[in-house]
Amino acid sequence: MTDRSPLHDLSAPPFVTRHIGPSAADRVRMLAAVGHESMAGLVAAAVPEAIRARMPLDLPEAVSEAGALAELKTLAGRNRVLTSMIGLGYHDTITPGVILRNVLENPGWYTAYTPYQPEISQGRLEALLNFQTMVADLAGLDVAGASLLDEATAAAEAMTLARRAGRSKSDVFVVDVDALPQTKAVLATRAQPLGITLVESDLTGDLPECFGVLVQYPGASGRAAGFAALADRAHAAGALVVAAADLLALTLLAAPGEQGADIAVGSTQRFGVPLGFGGPHAAYMAVRQGLQRQMPGRLVGVSVDADGRPAYRLALQTREQHIRREKATSNICTAQVLLAVIASMYAVYHGPEGLRRIAQRVHRHAAVLAAGLRERGVTVVHEAFFDTVLARVPDRVSGRAGEVVAAAAAAGINLRHVDADHVAIACDEKTTTGHLIAVWAAFGGDPKEGLDDALDGALDDLDRVTPDALPAGLLRTSAYLTHPVFHAHRSETAMLRYLRRLQDKDIALDRSMIPLGSCTMKLNATTEMEPITWPEFAGIHPFAPIGQAAGYVELIETLEAWLAEVTGYDKVSVQPNAGSQGEYAGLLAIRGYHRARGEEGRDVCLIPSSAHGTNAASAVMAGMRVVVVACDGDGNVDLGDLAAKIDKHRDALAAIMVTYPSTHGVYEETITEICERVHEAGGQVYVDGANLNALVGLAKLGEFGADVSHLNLHKTFCIPHGGGGPGVGPVAVKAHLAPHLPGHVSAAPYGSAGILPISWAYIRMMGGEGLRQATEQAILSANYLARRLATHYPVLYTGRDGLVAHECIIDLRQITKETGVTVDDVAKRLIDYGFHAPTMSFPVAGTLMIEPTESEDLAELDRFTDAMIAIREEIARVASGEYDKTDNPLRNAPHTADCLTADEWPHPYPRSVGAYPMPGLREGKYWPPVRRIDQAHGDRNLVCSCPPLDAYQAADD
Amino acid sequence: MTDRSPLHDLSAPPFVTRHIGPSAADRVRMLAAVGHESMAGLVAAAVPEAIRARMPLDLPEAVSEAGALAELKTLAGRNRVLTSMIGLGYHDTITPGVILRNVLENPGWYTAYTPYQPEISQGRLEALLNFQTMVADLAGLDVAGASLLDEATAAAEAMTLARRAGRSKSDVFVVDVDALPQTKAVLATRAQPLGITLVESDLTGDLPECFGVLVQYPGASGRAAGFAALADRAHAAGALVVAAADLLALTLLAAPGEQGADIAVGSTQRFGVPLGFGGPHAAYMAVRQGLQRQMPGRLVGVSVDADGRPAYRLALQTREQHIRREKATSNICTAQVLLAVIASMYAVYHGPEGLRRIAQRVHRHAAVLAAGLRERGVTVVHEAFFDTVLARVPDRVSGRAGEVVAAAAAAGINLRHVDADHVAIACDEKTTTGHLIAVWAAFGGDPKEGLDDALDGALDDLDRVTPDALPAGLLRTSAYLTHPVFHAHRSETAMLRYLRRLQDKDIALDRSMIPLGSCTMKLNATTEMEPITWPEFAGIHPFAPIGQAAGYVELIETLEAWLAEVTGYDKVSVQPNAGSQGEYAGLLAIRGYHRARGEEGRDVCLIPSSAHGTNAASAVMAGMRVVVVACDGDGNVDLGDLAAKIDKHRDALAAIMVTYPSTHGVYEETITEICERVHEAGGQVYVDGANLNALVGLAKLGEFGADVSHLNLHKTFCIPHGGGGPGVGPVAVKAHLAPHLPGHVSAAPYGSAGILPISWAYIRMMGGEGLRQATEQAILSANYLARRLATHYPVLYTGRDGLVAHECIIDLRQITKETGVTVDDVAKRLIDYGFHAPTMSFPVAGTLMIEPTESEDLAELDRFTDAMIAIREEIARVASGEYDKTDNPLRNAPHTADCLTADEWPHPYPRSVGAYPMPGLREGKYWPPVRRIDQAHGDRNLVCSCPPLDAYQAADD
Repeated sequence: MTDRSPLHDLSAPPFVTRHIGPSAADRVRMLAAVGHESMAGLVAAAVPEAIRARMPLDLPEAVSEAGALAELKTLAGRNRVLTSMIGLGYHDTITPGVILRNVLENPGWYTAYTPYQPEISQGRLEALLNFQTMVADLAGLDVAGASLLDEATAAAEAMTLARRAGRSKSDVFVVDVDALPQTKAVLATRAQPLGITLVESDLTGDLPECFGVLVQYPGASGRAAGFAALADRAHAAGALVVAAADLLALTLLAAPGEQGADIAVGSTQRFGVPLGFGGPHAAYMAVRQGLQRQMPGRLVGVSVDADGRPAYRLALQTREQHIRREKATSNICTAQVLLAVIASMYAVYHGPEGLRRIAQRVHRHAAVLAAGLRERGVTVVHEAFFDTVLARVPDRVSGRAGEVVAAAAAAGINLRHVDADHVAIACDEKTTTGHLIAVWAAFGGDPKEGLDDALDGALDDLDRVTPDALPAGLLRTSAYLTHPVFHAHRSETAMLRYLRRLQDKDIALDRSMIPLGSCTMKLNATTEMEPITWPEFAGIHPFAPIGQAAGYVELIETLEAWLAEVTGYDKVSVQPNAGSQGEYAGLLAIRGYHRARGEEGRDVCLIPSSAHGTNAASAVMAGMRVVVVACDGDGNVDLGDLAAKIDKHRDALAAIMVTYPSTHGVYEETITEICERVHEAGGQVYVDGANLNALVGLAKLGEFGADVSHLNLHKTFCIPHGGGGPGVGPVAVKAHLAPHLPGHVSAAPYGSAGILPISWAYIRMMGGEGLRQATEQAILSANYLARRLATHYPVLYTGRDGLVAHECIIDLRQITKETGVTVDDVAKRLIDYGFHAPTMSFPVAGTLMIEPTESEDLAELDRFTDAMIAIREEIARVASGEYDKTDNPLRNAPHTADCLTADEWPHPYPRSVGAYPMPGLREGKYWPPVRRIDQAHGDRNLVCSCPPLDAYQAADD
Repeated sequence: MTDRSPLHDLSAPPFVTRHIGPSAADRVRMLAAVGHESMAGLVAAAVPEAIRARMPLDLPEAVSEAGALAELKTLAGRNRVLTSMIGLGYHDTITPGVILRNVLENPGWYTAYTPYQPEISQGRLEALLNFQTMVADLAGLDVAGASLLDEATAAAEAMTLARRAGRSKSDVFVVDVDALPQTKAVLATRAQPLGITLVESDLTGDLPECFGVLVQYPGASGRAAGFAALADRAHAAGALVVAAADLLALTLLAAPGEQGADIAVGSTQRFGVPLGFGGPHAAYMAVRQGLQRQMPGRLVGVSVDADGRPAYRLALQTREQHIRREKATSNICTAQVLLAVIASMYAVYHGPEGLRRIAQRVHRHAAVLAAGLRERGVTVVHEAFFDTVLARVPDRVSGRAGEVVAAAAAAGINLRHVDADHVAIACDEKTTTGHLIAVWAAFGGDPKEGLDDALDGALDDLDRVTPDALPAGLLRTSAYLTHPVFHAHRSETAMLRYLRRLQDKDIALDRSMIPLGSCTMKLNATTEMEPITWPEFAGIHPFAPIGQAAGYVELIETLEAWLAEVTGYDKVSVQPNAGSQGEYAGLLAIRGYHRARGEEGRDVCLIPSSAHGTNAASAVMAGMRVVVVACDGDGNVDLGDLAAKIDKHRDALAAIMVTYPSTHGVYEETITEICERVHEAGGQVYVDGANLNALVGLAKLGEFGADVSHLNLHKTFCIPHGGGGPGVGPVAVKAHLAPHLPGHVSAAPYGSAGILPISWAYIRMMGGEGLRQATEQAILSANYLARRLATHYPVLYTGRDGLVAHECIIDLRQITKETGVTVDDVAKRLIDYGFHAPTMSFPVAGTLMIEPTESEDLAELDRFTDAMIAIREEIARVASGEYDKTDNPLRNAPHTADCLTADEWPHPYPRSVGAYPMPGLREGKYWPPVRRIDQAHGDRNLVCSCPPLDAYQAADD
């Protein structure tokens, strides 16, 4: 009886052991290296007692991966997937299997980071350039960005772009009465703090004085009509024209640019991206020449590398919020890359003829649907439409819309209940004649020509006699998607190889550590990812009757409650679909709170100089004035300056925004004091949750003085970065702010609901104990790295006992001064060693910020530190003169296979130093596809769509 | 009304346009290049009229990808997935998500070919070496192979190995009465034609005179007992000992090798491979030192490359059937690589402690289960067991087994109904205490200690007082899985990167064309692959009550009927899980047919000299004598020699085996005449279906004279090659042979049922018309290649009008004679151009056989021919003396990045010629991980398990 263990002790190792990289034995070695005997001791030394949570997290006990999947299956089973004909900017679509499996379900794509290091991001940058080309072509405009968060926020960004770019001094923005309701709602949220007055108009009569006008094309009601005359009127009055346009419709209808639109926005969801109960998907923005430098969000452009070959990178980055801070005009700091990649590949796979055929088919279904309704005596409101038919069903008393919608739902189809008298029916890529027949049946009445008998034949007849219902004179005649990439990958084999080829150009988490400070590139576990492509989660329309989404609602409410428990707040909303949006929502809540108390004058937002630029941008968008608070030499908030600023702005003080641990990666001892002082002055405390991975299970924001935060589920809670989006940025508030949370910061009620199962699964499989262990390991790993690197590089900031939080900053400024070797050189040289660079020059120029996360095992941490140490030795050779000051392996990095195998080797160091600077690289080296990219060249010669093939040819010669 | 198309014309392009590479426009260009105006004209010219099918294929009209998935979902829904506690060698298991997604669902793994070209297969070869190490370690034997088809056929291979390797002249093979029933059945099938007598024994008393004995360890009844004494007795009598052992049990029990087994076989299914209604999964075989050169199947070994670095490749290939032909002792010519990779990665991920913990947990559940049964008064038959409990449930009249099994099924659990008085219950990785409680309830009766009250507590108490039930003195004490690879990848991140690193070393279809003659490396579409990992297909035990597999049965019966229609046969059985097994089954049917007619003397099998070696091997295994028929200079069967051989063996003629189109890739005009002559002499015609991709929709084997064939679903019907398995080789017969088909050529009733949805989906989405188009395109593409290459290389065989069928052979013998450049040089140089080599030296030494398949688009076909032409120009430079005879880019190929970036470049041609011999390669070059591998060195110094890490270190120094 001694030779057995009880069943309890034989359970499979919990998920936490797969999520956390280092083993228990490794942890002992790492603790020893940082001079602590236990994790508890390390944590006690690192984390200020004042902020420590008093109780363990009150979360359900962790379940296994299989257990979590089983529970998610149960939740999924509570959703009911009906055929969606609701429309309103969300349309069902077929994701080609080859794209689903090899992009959305492939860690090579979904675990990649934002392409700030372009040399290791050429694959996704090419995909994004395809996206931009696709959007610009279809919109008939000159330049398109690399995607925005959703159509409604894109429209809001277009509104502010129009305001700053136009000649008009008006504060009025005219909105099409037929715009999507969610777009109107988000515009209203955004307009108010900025003093913009929204005026709804049917756009047929005279325009009021305004700086811009938004036209929905086609309208939410389905109505399709041109707006060239309107555009002329608007331009004459100095106003800009924004078209919110359906990209699929644009394959058949005249492009917005051809009608005078200055800006086009919209969604690319229906290009193969699952509905996902509202998100994520990629919105787009395209602008005419002249506006591109004012566009919000990311823009991919073509430049050249050190060998003069074409290479892609993010263009015009100085526009972005993290550079412009309080001068920023938008707080957008992510895109929807993964979803933009899917949409672009959908266009690559279908090509222009394929897209056109899909659009024609959608339209034909709508035209036949309308004809059939008319045969049944139902009034079809609009003569011209693309995919959506608006039916009038009045009744003597109250209208029959509810009845029709209910009958359709009983037949498995969701229609849109517009009002008591109107039903709208949207056709999409999945619509069949069977759906039309079911819809007709739902309307009841007698068809004139016996459609109920021999239905199929009758439908064919109806099809034959029914003309298209596209608006006359508005048919598209211009070409689109003429670039070869939209014609070369028609077979599944060709498509598969194109995806693989692009993927292979990039470094993602499936290849090596991505030690990006403040970005928390941790494991995105397969089990967390699996549910998001289940049809029960992927197939729900955001405006489906809520009863059909009972599983989603339960999952979301549970997740919000868990996040509240983790953060110590009272209320969490997952609606914001990026950190920036959560931040904005939180600031609006503060604003609303002060106003509700009659303190409308409180509009000053204090922001430490070390803050992420987004903080300031969001504050400005929320109608606040930014006042910067200095930091001391240790990177902490200068309490003296804080006191001075509070004194100066005491009556106007709305809030302070701080990041905790600080953007310097340090647990500031004074955080509770900061909170107290601001509260005492009547201000609210906003804590940016970007660094939550250093707190979970150890400290709760809501307990140590903060009033509101946003979280980043794509950092701490395992939603993958997707190569630069999707993000999810829930806002979390104390009870007194909850009533003031805005309801419409994103288009969909639950934002990017489709990916919330990821974070749900993570928390469910970790439990409170596991989450705490992850945080502890993240702290230990950062300190282990800091300790190993400290003898080679100065570590810039540390807290008590010389400890950092979950990341550390190494300072190259002195080294640069002495040797000329820059952070850029080190970052690019790391590519030769097979690594993605750490965060460069944030929060301090000339430094590198390293965040290992808990998911990297000891072998990988050591491999990285070995690389950094080897690079330090290379720097020493530059210093000693052994290496040339400018022609050395650091400055020439990264080295491509191309340059290393060239017949001539012009450099004074040997090829092998360029190629294999560290043992082990020969076992599987990552070869960058390009050498260092010339950023300035690309910005001077802005090219933001696919270059012709001979551009490459020429370089190859 | 003219501006619209009817709905019909707007349907999405059918799947066939995604499956077939070239577009309609490309086809026109390709037809022009081969001098034909239409596809019909080309086909009429290429395919003999005599064999042309008279009618189009009678198959259901093609559906879309979405439509096929919907139908498969419906079929899947007709399966009922119960908890499986049946055992019998099939156990439920948890496939770790990271392995499921990144191996089984990843085209980088599943579309790879057999690693005959080792330089581009190092990833899967490493995985297989891990597999061999795992098996050898756990079995306690010296050498393990790279996997076999299933446990039952592995046991049969072990039987014949024992017969030829042992000293005994006996024809008796003793089989454990407690062996798996399916193993006994397959042994019986295999023994009979070879004159082996099987004797069942409980192995406790004296052994009869025999050449070998098979012991099941633990037994099918669950009984676990050692067999060291038995082994001593067997060895003393000159017999060899085969242990059919459960690999998971071996983590706790003394290894077979430690008890004297000479050979161990078994299944690795429970190491993470889904049940799949019986397959596919990898069987294993391990042998003691001295037997390795006699092992059937593939064996991976370590050798060195041209730079002296360790490199993997298939070892001892001269043992294999395709070399030894009628001297072959096994017809095995594939493995189960994809499944072996999964099993090996399961061990890599769990490590020895993890596997041991899983085994302990399985055992504890069984022990507690038995204790609980005893408490209820149920007799447990065996005191010592691992995972399976045999319960005796006699009743006055007829036994209660049926009742208990039914009660368990009603509770969602399948038990094994052994006989009227016995029920067996097998525990596995998924078993929980909840299952135990449900099983107890199914047995009824009153538990002594109130297990039904407060069950969990009572269960804990029972657990506490119940000792392990492993056999005393048989506990494992030796170490296993000590190699670092089984200790290095414990976190999901580390595992993910290991899988990616290995995958990146290999060329699979996701990177480039694999132009392997006779192997038909066509698209394995995502939509075809998706269903196989759905739980409703993946989770069914092969011996589950058939009513629970209604969806499977319907799918299989439909598929068999479709395959019968495609081939013109009357009956198809999908049971054979490899082409070799289908071939063997077909020959047994011929044998049975002759015997049933009293013509037992018919045992001569005519085989043309051009035949694949497997044909001869299978004939020998079926108890036939092989007589070779000569081929003429055009590669066709020499009709004169055929007539002579028929005359000579007229009374003994059993069959002829031919391949059609011939292995030379030609439609032999004389096939109908050959069939007639053989029939006239009383023989049967076996047509090897390997080249069916040249016939589907154009000609039917069963219509032009053949009596029986095997098909290769992994060639023509899109089951991926998986890096060297799984295969599926259905046997198809005319009605007169149907009664003589053997029932037990594979372990599971439906063979590799789990992957049959792939072929079902392919046929469903192609329809008869699509299948024919695919065949036509395959013929056009082969002729296009042959035409483009013919001006540069001699094309060896052609049929009428100089046309080939679906592949072509280019002849390098003269070139080799003149220049010294060999097929090997060309094959390895192709790697530098980014391609997998064509089939080398089959069917004619010194040639390359190229099969493009229909799935490659024109751009890829041209890229390949451009590479071949460029290589021909390089050969010309050798001939002209411009390149050195031995130090040239062909002989030194493939070039690694390592050698090309070396500081010294010792070769007379420039580096760039080694690296980038063709434009376009710079856009995404595949870098081989090793240089050319020394085959002979590896066979001289046989190492078949993971080498110590310092082997690499040393080479790196």
